[in-house]
This record gives sequence, C-alpha cells and structure tokens, in this order.
Amino acid sequence: MARLVMKFGGTSVANVGLIEKIADRVVKSRAQGHEVIVVVSAMGHETDRLVSLAEEVDAGGADSVRELDVLLSTGEQVTTALLAMMLVKKGITAKSYQGHQIKILTDDAHGRARVMTVEEDRLLADLAEQRVPVIAGFQGISPSGRVTTLGRGGSDTTAVAVASALQADECQIFTDVDGVFTTDPRVVPEARCMSRITFEEMLELASSGSKVLHTRAVELANKNKVALRVLSSFNDVAGTLITSEDQIMMEAPLISGIAFTKDEAKLTLRGVKDQPGIASKILAPISEASIEVDMIVQNTGADGNTDFTFTVQRSDFQTAHQLLAGVARTIEAAEVLGDERIAKLSIVGVGMRSHAGVATQMFEILAKESINIQVISTSEIKISVVIDEKYLELAARALHAGFGLEVVAET
Amino acid sequence: MARLVMKFGGTSVANVGLIEKIADRVVKSRAQGHEVIVVVSAMGHETDRLVSLAEEVDAGGADSVRELDVLLSTGEQVTTALLAMMLVKKGITAKSYQGHQIKILTDDAHGRARVMTVEEDRLLADLAEQRVPVIAGFQGISPSGRVTTLGRGGSDTTAVAVASALQADECQIFTDVDGVFTTDPRVVPEARCMSRITFEEMLELASSGSKVLHTRAVELANKNKVALRVLSSFNDVAGTLITSEDQIMMEAPLISGIAFTKDEAKLTLRGVKDQPGIASKILAPISEASIEVDMIVQNTGADGNTDFTFTVQRSDFQTAHQLLAGVARTIEAAEVLGDERIAKLSIVGVGMRSHAGVATQMFEILAKESINIQVISTSEIKISVVIDEKYLELAARALHAGFGLEVVAET
Repeated sequence: MARLVMKFGGTSVANVGLIEKIADRVVKSRAQGHEVIVVVSAMGHETDRLVSLAEEVDAGGADSVRELDVLLSTGEQVTTALLAMMLVKKGITAKSYQGHQIKILTDDAHGRARVMTVEEDRLLADLAEQRVPVIAGFQGISPSGRVTTLGRGGSDTTAVAVASALQADECQIFTDVDGVFTTDPRVVPEARCMSRITFEEMLELASSGSKVLHTRAVELANKNKVALRVLSSFNDVAGTLITSEDQIMMEAPLISGIAFTKDEAKLTLRGVKDQPGIASKILAPISEASIEVDMIVQNTGADGNTDFTFTVQRSDFQTAHQLLAGVARTIEAAEVLGDERIAKLSIVGVGMRSHAGVATQMFEILAKESINIQVISTSEIKISVVIDEKYLELAARALHAGFGLEVVAET
Repeated sequence: MARLVMKFGGTSVANVGLIEKIADRVVKSRAQGHEVIVVVSAMGHETDRLVSLAEEVDAGGADSVRELDVLLSTGEQVTTALLAMMLVKKGITAKSYQGHQIKILTDDAHGRARVMTVEEDRLLADLAEQRVPVIAGFQGISPSGRVTTLGRGGSDTTAVAVASALQADECQIFTDVDGVFTTDPRVVPEARCMSRITFEEMLELASSGSKVLHTRAVELANKNKVALRVLSSFNDVAGTLITSEDQIMMEAPLISGIAFTKDEAKLTLRGVKDQPGIASKILAPISEASIEVDMIVQNTGADGNTDFTFTVQRSDFQTAHQLLAGVARTIEAAEVLGDERIAKLSIVGVGMRSHAGVATQMFEILAKESINIQVISTSEIKISVVIDEKYLELAARALHAGFGLEVVAET
C-alpha cells in the first residue's frame, strides 16, 4: 500500500467522458489498496475561454490581476466537482477541495503565486476515513484571504506541494504522453520512453525544450524529495520515475536524453571593445524590456575586440534586435547580426560528470553529418549547441543513434 | 447619500457588453454619492451549462449534491471577477467576494441552504475606504466549510441578507422589466408600473403568478425590514418600491394588482362522505408524492356527501390524478374529475382589509362578461378564482378596467 498523489492535466479532463476514464484510474489505484489524493487542472480549453472573457473586459492594473485569479480559479473548481461526483457515482467517497478549504497558503503575488504551506490535517483525516480528496490545482489563498493562482505549471506544482505535505510515496503526473522520452518521438522514431531519470536530468531536459513537466514542479519535487512519476492518462504504462540521483543504483548512462527547441533566435553584436562591464551594458536594455536571455557566449578575438552572442525567445527577436541597434551605437560596436532560423539542441545526462569526452563525441557526430555548430554552452550535465534549424532533425537522429539511446540502458 | 445594495440577475450580466452597462449604473450611483454593494448572478445560461455537465455525470446521492453546489457556485464567481475588473477599468476600486470570504454562513442543506448570518466587518471596511464589494449571489458556506447554494431565488435572497446585515437604505433588484405592474402588460396593455407596493401585496402577487421577485426574498426583506426596489437594468426608471404597509402614508388603493397563472390543473373528488379526517385521507398520498397543492375547496351538500376540489402544478396533474383514483376506491367516493384547461386569477390589495364588497365587485365584473367561477379562495388581502383558461385574458382586462387600475392611484 502506498500513498499516491495523482495529478490530471487539462487534456485528461477535457470532457465528462475523459473524466470518467480518469475516475476509473483512481478506482483502480484504490482497489490496489493505495491511498489516493487527486489534483486536477481546468477542463481542456476552459482556461482559454475565461482568459478571453477577461480580455473582453481588458482592464489591467493590480486590482484587475487579483480579479483575474478569481476568474481563472473557477476552471479547476468545475473539474473538482465533476470528478468528485463521478467518483461518488463509482462508489468512492470523494470530496472536492479548493485552495481556501485545505488552505494552500501562497504569497500574494497574484498570477504567479508561490506555495508557502499546505495544511495536511483535513486531508489526513479524509485518508484515514477512506475518502479521496479531489484538489483544485493551480490555485491557493493569500495571507489576506484572496484567491491566488500559481501561473504556468501551477497544477503540477500544487500536486508536488500536496505530495510533500502528506509525505506521499509518489506524485503521479498524468499526461497525454507515455512518459519522458530520450528525445521527441515525432522527430526520432527510435526514441525510447525512459523508466527512470534523475531530477537534474529532468530539469535540464525541461529547460531545453522537453515540455512534459514544468521546471518549477520538478525543482519543488527535488527540493522536497518527492518521487515524481510521469505517466499516460490514456495508456496503462509504468511511465517515467523521476528520483534523486542516489536512488538510481546502477551505473548511470552516459547521456539520458536529447532536447531541442526552435523557439529561439540568435543575436550577435560584432566588434565590441573588450572591456570590463561590457556584457551588462549590452544586456541591461534587453532585461529591462523583460526579455529573457537564454544562451550567452562571448569570444575574444586577437585584436582586443570581441563578438557577443546570445539567444532570446523568437517572439522577442524583433524587439531585442531594435534595442541592440541602439546599444551598438552607444558602445560603438561594428554591427548587429540576427538569425531567426536557428535551433537549440541539448544532450543531457548525469553520466557526463564521470565521463570525459562527451562533448568531443557530440561534436564528432555532428561533424560527420557536416552540421556547423554556431554556439556552444555547457553545464555540468548538459551540452547545448545552436545550429541552423534545417539540420535539427538530422542532428537529433544522429545523436540519438550515436549515443546508443534506442538501446534500453536500464538504470 | 444612501447605502444601496444593487443586485443584477443573469440576463443583466449575460455578456461582457451588458456587464459594462451595469458597471455604468454602479458608477452613476457612486457619482451620486451613494455607498454601493453589488450582488450578481451567473451569466445568462452559465448555470444551465454547468447543470448539463453535472447531468452528464449523473451521479445522485448526498455527496453528489454537495459537489453540485461546488460546481454551480463557479457561475457567480466568474461574474464577480468580470464585474470587479470592469469597475476597476472605470476607475472604481472594486473587490469580488465569494460566500466563504465574507462568510455568508448558511445551514448545510445543500442545494437549498438558508442564510444564517452575513459577516459585515469586511464589507463595512470596504465601504469606509470607498471600495465597492462585488458579492457572488446564490452561494454561501456551511458550518463545516463546504460551499452551499441557496436554490431558487437565491441571488435575490443573498442581496436581501446582505442589505439586512449592512442596514442598507435600499436593496435594488435589477431585472429585465421596469418594475412591478398592476398585471401582465402582455395581456392587458393598460397595465401600469406601480411606484409603491406593500410586502404583503408583493408576496400575494408573487405566489399568484407574478414572476418579478421570488417569494423567499420578499419574505426575508419583510422580516428584516429591508426596503426592496425592483427596477430595470436596461431602462433608467424609478421602478417599484416594496415597503412595509405603515410606510405608505396615503390611503391604500382598493386593489394593487392582478396576478394569474396557467400553470395549474384542477382535481375534484365527487361524492365523498363528509367525515372528520377525510381531507387528510385524500391529500396524504398527494403530499407523500411531493406534489404541492395550491387551492383547496370543500363544499358540503345536503345529502351529507361533499365534493373535494384542489389545484396542483399542471406538470403534476397526471400523477395526482392516478393517486386520487386509488384514494377514491379506498374511501368509496363517487368519481374523480380532472381539468387541465383552467387558469387561476387573483386580485391583491391591502385596501381590501378596510373595504367590504371587493369580492362582490370582482364577481359582478366577471358575471358581466359571462365568465363562470369554478373555485374561490380568499385570504386577507387576496381573492383568487379558478376559471376556464380561455377566459383568462378577458377576465384580466375586465378586472383591470373595473377596478380602475390604469389610473395612477399614487400612494
């Protein structure tokens, strides 16, 4: 018998038929003797519908942001009620909870609130009496009693916070995929669903373009030692367990997965005088415009001049390009180059720590395919490269094969 | 300067355009120096949408009824957020409140909860700081912290309860009509919107087929001495003020209004032995089937036998007819007669108390039109008759003219 938090996202609860399917999964887990706590998102496109109502009003300002949270939180509330009713129909004693009822206490940063505490008393009482609590994800209550929402990845975060408070054995995130794959199966048909992966690898994959889990929930799970499992709402498969590195007994594989994204664009400022503080002079106007910078690379040339390159979200490219033109004049740089037709590709693996030469192997594989690397950036367990986007699929397949990811390297 | 509770129903908030219109009404009241508290219903057909989702689940049982309240209460929550945002946009500091936030404490009769108390502290603090609270109607919170809904007429009831707690000068119920009319203007074009009416008259009109206000809200207002005003969301008219009789200074008119309904059907048990307890023997199976009985009339004939007649909702007619057939056999009655083609018509007025002969005048007016009266029932300020439904419009017009209702008899 285990204590499980089961979290179902929007596509898993998009209509009453699907809600019945996930109710069956809950019934099955209960029949296996598990204690179950459910966390749900809003139905399918419900949040979009609510957002567009708010856009019709088009108010803006802090007071309005607070009310937006009141509006959006109804989406999850509807799902909790429907799922609880469905469970009741199937003979399970279930009870819906909103953020204010179990007190999911957050700070008062409306629209992007952080969970501070989750009261466990009521939930533990429910479990003791064989009840299944059905909790609204994505929402909480501020110290002043206002409804808050957690922002992107909010429901996953709720699930992890609840699992942590209840010391659950596992926090199961049900999605529309079978688990975490070595890379995107739509690009590399040989991609394999991993049975285990470490938090660090999952974080690097998530921040490099793998959309299965939101970084924020993974970080919270890592910090609170909550075992996370990604699995399918629709297929009965074991999914991928995300745990601490020390819980993976056998030798870790060299690399675990390949992530990529075409969402970025590259900007280069050529002929910059290499002086202390030059990087902040270049990036300050960018960050003031709330544009997030991803990879940053600076190479110093022989003549004392340097080229400064960074990537931004593709949607921010035009704005960043204009800002950079202004910076170029101020610091007397030679020119601004921009490229929207790039892709970022990353290989991730805790095995890199103990194995030298992974970068070399990656570059050799790409060179063999005549793929030019434009930018390189590395972290302890990740190597990212920027390449021309037309080579992305080729590069992903070559690396997947080259590192032997299609072979089951069970950990 | 007055303290006003302004309540807007579903048709008044059916879309964002209409929400903007009612926001303008709030802005106007504030500009006139009034303190304003708003109570809102769910948008247009939102409750229907939520009910049909619940019907898709089709659970049933007490646990499910509790969850239905969680589901339905989201409808009003959405409106509070959108209206608060709209008010903010128009430069008014507004704040949405759900039942759990201001504590609209109810009993735990889910789906038809009764309001016990409304906490006034937060609302008074808002008013002191020039804020407009926007309160979700129809919902509250039970002593165990569960969301409850108040059932039919719930939002009107919330408005009256809030007005009572805050000792508001007026509780304004905005509707899609201009106020309370002497009778239905679709039937009698001369019908006139009354500027004042007493609670007692309003209650009799409401229970006799006038749909403007729910009986429950009127009763609560009467009990707590809350001045109610019915007025239009769409037209800028003064509407109808509903107050205690002692607040109407001048002589009350003989009758105030004419209400009617075709929703009823008539059942007669002929040739019943006139014995003590016979009425309860006849009606017990009817009330056990949760069928509500409206008018009841019993005439004793010369031969010691009696005819027993009552009316029920037309939708209950078939069931009631079958039950009565069983009763007829048991008590050896002669026969069961049923008639679905009837209408009930009532004249209402506190002036009846001090004026004799109103009934006679009514019967004379109907006799002049050769309209046969099938059943008569009277209360202190109301006379109701059952007639063939084909005469309804004729009877209404004749009574409206006969009692001089088209003339402004200002009180």
